[in-house]
Order: sequence, then C-alpha cells, then structure tokens
Amino acid sequence: ALEDLTFTTANAVNVVFVLLSGFLVFLMQGGFAMLEAGSVRTKNTKNVLLKNVLDACCGVIAFYVFGFAFSSGEPSNAFIGYGNFALADFPKEQYREFFFAWTFAATAATIVSGCVAERTSFLAYLMYTVFVTSFVYPVVAHWIWSPSGWLSAENEDPLIGVGVFDFAGSTVVHVVGGFAGLMGAIIVGPRLGRFDEDGRVTPMPGHSATLVTLGGFLLWFGWYGFNTGSAGAATFVIDDPELIGSTVIQVVAANTTVAAAAGGITVLVLVRLRDGLFDLISSLNGILAGLVSITAGCAVVEPYGAFAIGLIGGSIYVLSSWSLLLLRIDDPLDAYPVHGSCGVWGTLAVGLLATKELMAMTSYNNDSWGLFYGGGFRLLGGQVIGVVSVIAWVVAIIGSFFLILQRLNLLRISPEQEMRGNDQIKHGGVAYPEMKTGTRTRRVVEP
Amino acid sequence: ALEDLTFTTANAVNVVFVLLSGFLVFLMQGGFAMLEAGSVRTKNTKNVLLKNVLDACCGVIAFYVFGFAFSSGEPSNAFIGYGNFALADFPKEQYREFFFAWTFAATAATIVSGCVAERTSFLAYLMYTVFVTSFVYPVVAHWIWSPSGWLSAENEDPLIGVGVFDFAGSTVVHVVGGFAGLMGAIIVGPRLGRFDEDGRVTPMPGHSATLVTLGGFLLWFGWYGFNTGSAGAATFVIDDPELIGSTVIQVVAANTTVAAAAGGITVLVLVRLRDGLFDLISSLNGILAGLVSITAGCAVVEPYGAFAIGLIGGSIYVLSSWSLLLLRIDDPLDAYPVHGSCGVWGTLAVGLLATKELMAMTSYNNDSWGLFYGGGFRLLGGQVIGVVSVIAWVVAIIGSFFLILQRLNLLRISPEQEMRGNDQIKHGGVAYPEMKTGTRTRRVVEP
Amino acid sequence: ALEDLTFTTANAVNVVFVLLSGFLVFLMQGGFAMLEAGSVRTKNTKNVLLKNVLDACCGVIAFYVFGFAFSSGEPSNAFIGYGNFALADFPKEQYREFFFAWTFAATAATIVSGCVAERTSFLAYLMYTVFVTSFVYPVVAHWIWSPSGWLSAENEDPLIGVGVFDFAGSTVVHVVGGFAGLMGAIIVGPRLGRFDEDGRVTPMPGHSATLVTLGGFLLWFGWYGFNTGSAGAATFVIDDPELIGSTVIQVVAANTTVAAAAGGITVLVLVRLRDGLFDLISSLNGILAGLVSITAGCAVVEPYGAFAIGLIGGSIYVLSSWSLLLLRIDDPLDAYPVHGSCGVWGTLAVGLLATKELMAMTSYNNDSWGLFYGGGFRLLGGQVIGVVSVIAWVVAIIGSFFLILQRLNLLRISPEQEMRGNDQIKHGGVAYPEMKTGTRTRRVVEP
Repeated sequence: ALEDLTFTTANAVNVVFVLLSGFLVFLMQGGFAMLEAGSVRTKNTKNVLLKNVLDACCGVIAFYVFGFAFSSGEPSNAFIGYGNFALADFPKEQYREFFFAWTFAATAATIVSGCVAERTSFLAYLMYTVFVTSFVYPVVAHWIWSPSGWLSAENEDPLIGVGVFDFAGSTVVHVVGGFAGLMGAIIVGPRLGRFDEDGRVTPMPGHSATLVTLGGFLLWFGWYGFNTGSAGAATFVIDDPELIGSTVIQVVAANTTVAAAAGGITVLVLVRLRDGLFDLISSLNGILAGLVSITAGCAVVEPYGAFAIGLIGGSIYVLSSWSLLLLRIDDPLDAYPVHGSCGVWGTLAVGLLATKELMAMTSYNNDSWGLFYGGGFRLLGGQVIGVVSVIAWVVAIIGSFFLILQRLNLLRISPEQEMRGNDQIKHGGVAYPEMKTGTRTRRVVEP
Repeated sequence: ALEDLTFTTANAVNVVFVLLSGFLVFLMQGGFAMLEAGSVRTKNTKNVLLKNVLDACCGVIAFYVFGFAFSSGEPSNAFIGYGNFALADFPKEQYREFFFAWTFAATAATIVSGCVAERTSFLAYLMYTVFVTSFVYPVVAHWIWSPSGWLSAENEDPLIGVGVFDFAGSTVVHVVGGFAGLMGAIIVGPRLGRFDEDGRVTPMPGHSATLVTLGGFLLWFGWYGFNTGSAGAATFVIDDPELIGSTVIQVVAANTTVAAAAGGITVLVLVRLRDGLFDLISSLNGILAGLVSITAGCAVVEPYGAFAIGLIGGSIYVLSSWSLLLLRIDDPLDAYPVHGSCGVWGTLAVGLLATKELMAMTSYNNDSWGLFYGGGFRLLGGQVIGVVSVIAWVVAIIGSFFLILQRLNLLRISPEQEMRGNDQIKHGGVAYPEMKTGTRTRRVVEP
Repeated sequence: ALEDLTFTTANAVNVVFVLLSGFLVFLMQGGFAMLEAGSVRTKNTKNVLLKNVLDACCGVIAFYVFGFAFSSGEPSNAFIGYGNFALADFPKEQYREFFFAWTFAATAATIVSGCVAERTSFLAYLMYTVFVTSFVYPVVAHWIWSPSGWLSAENEDPLIGVGVFDFAGSTVVHVVGGFAGLMGAIIVGPRLGRFDEDGRVTPMPGHSATLVTLGGFLLWFGWYGFNTGSAGAATFVIDDPELIGSTVIQVVAANTTVAAAAGGITVLVLVRLRDGLFDLISSLNGILAGLVSITAGCAVVEPYGAFAIGLIGGSIYVLSSWSLLLLRIDDPLDAYPVHGSCGVWGTLAVGLLATKELMAMTSYNNDSWGLFYGGGFRLLGGQVIGVVSVIAWVVAIIGSFFLILQRLNLLRISPEQEMRGNDQIKHGGVAYPEMKTGTRTRRVVEP
C-alpha cells in the first residue's frame, strides 16, 4: 500500500506539473491575441482577435480528431501516426499528453495570423488553421518527438546516430509557424500602401502599444509553461535518483529567463544605435526572439550559453526584420523574424552550446554534445538536417496550400474591404464604437 | 519516517494542486472585470470595474465570516452548516478548502454584475454581493457538495438513491449566478432606450471588443483551475491505486477544452447563418457557454460527449439570448444565457452522457450513469430535481431581495445619472480622461 | 529504490511548487506595467511600459551576474555574499532559488518606476534598475534571508535573540522599493504643474482606469505566488511529519486574501467619507496596501489578524498618500504609500500579531511571538531594528545615487520633453497613433 501511494504520488506530481504547464501555454493564446490586436490598426482589430479566438477553437477540434493521431497516435511509422483518432483507445491516464500537445499545435497555428494580418480573408485563415493543426504541424511533431519519428533523438536508431534535439520546439513549433507565416506573407502580398513604387516603406504602426506590451508579458509568462512543461515530468529518474528530473526544469526556467532578457536588451541597443530611439515594440520582439531561440536548447545549455543564444537571437531578429523590408515582404507583426529566423538559430545553437552533462541529464543520449565543448559536428549535423527538412516540408506544403487558395481567389480580401477595414464589413462594426479615430500620420522611410 | 514522508508528500501534492487551481480561479475575477468593462459604454466603465473589484473584496469578508460556515461548517444539517464561523476551530491544514470555496463564491456573485450593468445603484450591488456570498450561494453549495446536504451525491442516503452530480458547479455556481442575474435584470428593468415602443432593440455595443476578448481568454484560462481543482486532490486512490486521482483531472482538462471549442465554433456558425457576419463577441460567449455546460460533467463524460455538450450549449446560448430580447429583458453581457441556461443544460447533460466507467472513477457512486449509455432515468432524475430546487431557491430569495430594494427605491440609479453615466457622477470622473468619445451610431434592429 | 523515489518525489513537489510560484511572481511585472501605464498620461505611456520591460530584462542580467551572489552566494559574511557570481559553481538542482529570487529583485526594482514616472530620464532609470537589482536589494535580502545575514532570524546567533521575521518581504522587497521610490520622487521633483504656487494640487489622472484595474488583478494574482512560494517548500517536516509544510502555505493563501480585501474595503470607505465618491483607483491601491501589509506576517497570523493588518494598512495608505501631497511630493502611482508605508507597518505588525503556534510552524524560532498574545517586546524589537536599518541603508545609498545623477544632470528630462511627452521625443511616436486625445480638464483642489 505504501508502495502504491508512492507511485501514485510520483505520477500525480508529473500530471499536475504537465497540466499546469499546459494551462500557462494556453494563456499564450491570449498573449498572441493582445500582441496582434495591438499591432494592427483599429479597423482590423476585431478581425485579428476573432482569428486568434477561432484558431484556438478550430485547433482543438482539428487536433482532437486528427492532429493528435498523426503526431502521437499508435500505430505509427517513421513519417506519421495513424491510430487514436479522436482519442479512440487512447488511455485516459495519459490525456495530459493530448492537452499539452494541443496547446503547442495552437501556438504553431496562431503565429501565422500575425504574418498575414489585415489583408487575408477570414475563411482562408480558418482553412489554414485547420490544415496546420490537423496535419502540417502534427507530422513535424511526429518526426522529431515521437520515438518512431525519422528525425527523433529518441528513435532506437536515430538519424546519423543523434537525430534532432529540440527540447521544447524551436523547430517543431516556431520554425513551422514562422515559415508558414512567411509563405503566407509572400503569397498574399503586402498591405495596400505598405511599399511605394521606390520600395520605400510606409510605417503602419499598430493602434495600441499597451496591448502589445500586455501580450508580450503574457507570452513570456506562458513560455515558462512551454519550456519547463516540455520536460514532461518532474520526477523521472536516470542516474541520480534524487534530483535529475526536477533539476532539468530548474535549468530550463533559469535559461529561459536569461535568454529572454538578453534578446530584449540586445534589440533595444541595436535599434538605439541604428535609429536613435528607445523602441518599445522591437524590444518586446527582442524578448520573444530570445525566447524562441532558447526553446530548443533550454535544458542543455549553461546560463551563459543562454545569454549568448538570446543575444545572437536578438541580433538575428533585427537583421531578419530589416531583410524582409528590403525584400518588400510585409509581415505586420515581424512574426517570421521572431519565430522563423530565431527558431532556426535556436535549433542550430544546440549543436554548438549543448553541454555533455546536461545532454546526459535529459536522457536523450550520452555521447553527443555541442561543438564548442569539443563534441564535434555530429550533433550540429543532426540539427541542420532537422531544420532543413522541416523548412522544406513547410515551404512545400503550406506554399502549395496558399497558392491554391490564391488561384481560387479565396486568399485575399478586396481592396475596398482592406481600405475600410475588415471590422466594419465582415464583423458588424468597429472594435471601439465610441472612440474617435484619426488618420494616422504618414511618414515615408528608407528600409 | 519513510512512511511519514510519503504521506506528507501525497498531501502536499494535493495542497499545491488545489491552491494553484484556486489562484487560477481567482484570476477569473480579473477576466470578468475585463469582459464586463469592455461590454459597457465608456461612461460606466469605472462603475463596473469597481463593482468587480468590490465583489471580490466584500465576497472575501462575507464568505470568511458567514459563507464558509453555511456551506462547509460543522455541525450542519441537510439544509445548512452552522459552525466554523470566521474559520473558528477550522483546522489550518484544510484552509485550502476555504480558499478554493471562496473563489467559487466570488465567481457566482460576479456573474450578476453583468446582467444588471449600467443602471443599478452601487450600494444595491454591494448589498446583493454580500447577501449572495454570505448566504444564498453557500446554502446551495451545502445542499449539493456537503456530505450532509439533502441533494448531495455524497450523502449516505442520497435523494432517490443518487443525489445531484455537479462536479465543478454548473448548478452550484452558474445556475445560481445566472438566475440571480436574471431576477436582477427583470426587476431593475432595461437600460433607457434599449427597447423602443415597438419592442425593437437598440444595439448598445460595449466600448472595447479587445477587453472583452482579453476577459474571455482569462476566463478560459481560469476555468482550467475551476474544473480540474474541483477534483480536490490529485492522488486519491479508489480501486486502482496508481492512477485514478490523477486520471480524473486529465479527463477534466481535455473535456473542458473540447467543450469550450465546440461552443465557440457553434455560435460562430449560427450567428453567421442568422446575421451574415462573423461575430466576435457572441463567439466568445459561445466559448463561455461551452465552458459552463461542461462544468457539471467534465469528469464523467467522454471527449465526444464534451463535444456534444459544448455544441448544444452554444445553440442554447444563441436561443436564450434571442429569447431575452423578445421578452424585452436587457442583459447587457448575456450573462443569463451563458451562465443560467447553459448551467441548466450542463447539469442535465450529466444525466444523459455520464459513462459508467468515469462515474465510478470519481468515487461518487458506482451504479448510476447516463441515459444514453443505458443507465436509465435515475441519474437524470436527480439532476432535474437538483436544478429545479436550486432555481426555485434562487428565484424566490433573490427575487424577493431585489423587489425589496426596489420598493425602498435603492435599486436603480436616476435617469439623469444613467444618461450622463455613473463614472462622472459617482466615481469622480471618466475612465479615459484623455480620450475623445463620440456619440455611438444608433441602429434599430428587429430582435 | 522505493526510498529513492520517495525522496525524489518530495523534492519534485517542492521544485514544482517554487517554480510555479515564481512564474506567478514574474507575471507581476506585467501587472505593474499595466498599472503604471494606466496611471500616466498617454504622452508617456510607451516610456513607462518600456521602463517596466527593461527593468525586467536588465534585472535578469544584473541579478544573474552580481545580485544573486551578493544575496545568496557562498562564501558570505554578515553583510554580503561574495561567491557564485553568474551562477558559477551554484548547484543546478537549486536553480529554482535563483529564479525565485530574481522575480523578487525585479519586483523591488519596478516599484520605483511608478514614483518617478513622467519626468525621469530613461538612462537614469536604467542605471538605477541595474544598481538596485545588482547591489542594493541583494544586500538587504542577504541581511534578512541568508542564514549568515546579521538581521536574519535563521542566524545561529540572531540579533537580540530573534532577528527580523519577514516571511515574504514586506521589508526586503516593499520597504526597499518604496523608500527608493520616495528618494527618487523627492530628488527628481514634482511633474511640471503638479503643484501651484499656493501648494494646491492639480489632478493628473492616468489615461486608463481599465488598465489600472487589470494591473491590480494581475498583481493580486501574482501575490499568491509571492507569498506562498516564500515558504520555499510544500513538504518540509518539523514536529508533525504529516502536515506542517503544506499547512503553512494554506494559511498564507487565506491570510493574503483576507488582508487584500480588508485593505480595499477600508480605502473605499475612507475615501467615500472624505471625498464623497466611490473611488476605483484608490480602492485598488487599498488592495495593494493590504497585500504589502500582510507580506511579512502572512504565515504567522490568524485570519482575523490578517483582517486587522489589512484594515490598518489601508488606513495608513490613505494617510500616507495625503501626507505626500501636503509635503508637495509627487508620486504619480502612490507607490511609496503602498509599498513603503505599508511595508513598514506589515513588518511591525508581525511583532504585534504573530501567534506562538504559527511562529513554531514556520521553523524560525519557538520562543518569541507577538506582543498582543503575550509574547513581549522582543520580537517587535527585532522588527523595529530591521526596518530602521533597511530604511537607513536605502535612504543613504539610493539618495546618494539619485543626487549624483542629478548633479551630473542625468536625472530629469527637459521641460520641453516633459510637456510634449517622452513617447514622441524619445520613443518614436505615441502609444495610440489612431486615438484622438483631448486636453485633460484641469481641476485645482486642496490637498
């Protein structure tokens, strides 16, 4: 009986930990909603809010019926799972896995709403969100996180002996969301008036810096659930029976914090040097850049490694955001620079900065670690293969998807709707019916 | 010593789980505040915010001194508890029960502030909130959740052999709040200008769709604490010593998610079919409708059952909201359709869709389950008796309470105050002193 | 093996509890950001938001490199720690201590941004925040919370036999932040136009009461993590192996709740009596006053003691806020009255109201308790010495710091910048580019 209680309790700790972490990850949906609402103009506020609400809702159903089966169902092969549809025959004592996995799928999906904001049709967005949460994302999650996945580090015979190490999803969640968004931003095209004939950029500031900041804090908060909860357990035991499991989540919390801060400060400084002002919105994006960058390696790097990862992540964000403008790609939220570019960097950084001690502690494997600690190129090689494969998959399948929608004339709203705003035309009225809004002052700047 | 540590730890897991769940439920107060603030006009924003702040505060003191004793105190009889006033002699190692129960009482109370918003006097509202949290709600909680309560499923000799099964409070919290609010909305009467002589409805949109959305996400987030925390423990043991307790909370998390999503999507579709637009606010109410509907049965239905419950809950919300307009009852937040109607539905749904396996796992009883699974009418009968009894209690006592306030001329603010707004007259100025607000465009629509 | 699992699990419960509590404390950064943004005028919104974002970020790096070593590093002496810089050689299985401690340091730092809002230079604020999180706060944390600290109740030979009892930081966090802010408010001087020649006060209401309310709820929510998490563990064992550790956190949750409510109601009533209106903002400050006041004693007083502490805390807040105006000190957020004055009161209240039973349960000491329970003056004496010492330290070092910045002409922005607002001049544009803002109506009132 004592033994039973011990096992029951150990299990309960893990269940409680994963569920509560999942609740925090869920709140990131609210964070994204605030971030995106604040970043668009008032005329499209209800539109982007409803997209965020609906990708959470549609994501549940799509992931419940199909997505979870494709990512984690049994039986499965190296490419995909094909059982446990609609949770059929899935053991109730593991439902936390479904819940936690859903919050990740919803995160991957919602990233795109930022990239394509203010000019994409509502129905096209809903079709996209169902497609991503039911199929595109789950396949990637299966590749990397299912023991049978062909890229998995937990595979019995992992690719080039290591597979891909992606602790909480720099690639699985953020590269998927970021590159899907990039495809969307390119194919749907820039907002009317965003670039003039000479390629100069018209600033289109969002309507509320406060909402963006609120969203940023909610995301940082939720990210603690995202990264620590990815440990999956707080008590699992490997070598040292006393502390390993719970040590991992402590390392994750510390590294997540350090990288977020390093990203935020780096962008503040870089933008100050470039533009001569202390910029709030880009600093918040710098924090998110740091968070995305540390997501893959949060359990396996030292805090000073996390600092370096966040610092470089912030720099990559600034460069990547600037590149998009040069290429005349309009990403109103800078969601691709944050999630796509930094997702790639975070995945590769594992190959550079993972320590032997921490790689062993996470139970994945004991014999490969980061290049900078003398671990050679093998781990880095696995990371490169993983991220390239996932980008290829996302670009191919989501690119095709958006191109088909474009051909069917379903992707973009009419210029009239874009000028007047989605809220008036499609959503029954403006978000702030009592607020007098003025014309935004236009400045034209060089990218 | 090892045995001691095992018991200590098992207990600690439960304590931590219940406290953290309670913290999430508390945050629903903030969610309601944002939801309600966004749903009223700027001239009453501070008024509704202060009502939300104060029902939390007054709710603490009222529930601490009286409410907890009436709901959970000992000694007690079938109707009410009458000991442990002000936590006297209540064991400190169970204070979590007080804390968690308070967050529920505060939720029941705050629902009403939506129904009667924009025209109810501040003092009347404070008196109401003290009355509900100190007496009306605790009595119902005692009936259904105390082992000595006459409707309790845990009663040694439960009513018609089953009592009422209400896992997290579709009836105890939401029917109480919803029907109290309905009484208030009827007795205080509609806002000036809400209905014209021909019964047509003048839309009075709230001032910020963004705040409503933020509130919706905070409520969904808090609801995870509300429903899972109602398990009361993460490690309790019945048949299978290893997994039962922690399994319940996993089932709850999954079902809560699926029902919320089903409710949101259903309302989006129904309103699109009826009005031809994708409506944000009603979709958010659809999510809440799904959440209220699943609250009673979240631990005892299959996920596809949760889907059905959310789908029907969303439909009931739409019908119920439309009915209120037909009846010229002005509920600015649609709080009755969400909490009252769906609370009834959620309670009855247990009698239809509870499975034998899950009813056994929750430890309530082993020999009654849902009609649709061949469990017969007994469980459903208990649910009907329970919900009818609670409605009768609330309508009688809260109806009398509001009628007395009305007779004493304490219930409604003056027409002048209503036109100018509460904030200017009672609260020292407007919520947004720098914002230029315009006259809302009026449309007149058929209900 | 069973024994190993038992220890692992007990440890995991504590780790999960402390980490999740720390996540909630982190969210207080978002709460402060919303509270402060809503309390300033639109022209300085982005400025105060960025200060909040940056004190979190800079606080991480400063505390990671220096602060944690000074507060908790080993080796150490009675004044300061001087090892484990940048977490060097600090055991990874205790990283939660760094994480949790950082969230507290960031809280202490961010309080000041309220006191000096709308007229302090951005660089001066960043320098301040790094100074506080790297040195000023950590030294105080070391004095009181490190077993080697000269004021610590856990010192082997504590000062006057008791040391200072500050469970969650009324002194360590709030007195430090509050008095640092007071120094700032005095030295930087009032906002232009805040006081006229006759000492009359021009109200400068913040631009959004909704944001202030949201901030208040987020802070109350986060405070549950702040106070319960300060137990450091949920399962530790003293006399009674079964319940002590988990009992402490339950007492804390209940007391925190009761004191918050008492503070809010008290201020509502007092301001109603004085000004004849139900005031939202000061009621929210009353809640915060209750929370600050209970922070030191939340684990060692009875709930009715918490009620008294909150009630007196609310009264002290009102008096203190009124005194500042009389003294022509401009604290736009009333952050000193909330954190400074109530922090002092909360610390002293322990010496009056701590019970013998609960003092024993917290493991600090068994033989001193509150004056009102016959414990004599010893505990109260320790509290007085502690709070006086900390105030002396903060006033001396932070006063000098701000005076030096002032001499170097780095502290205050130019009158032109203050009139036009920081956002236009330093941060690239206003927070709400589409909102038409009007001139605030001026009233002149007697203090």
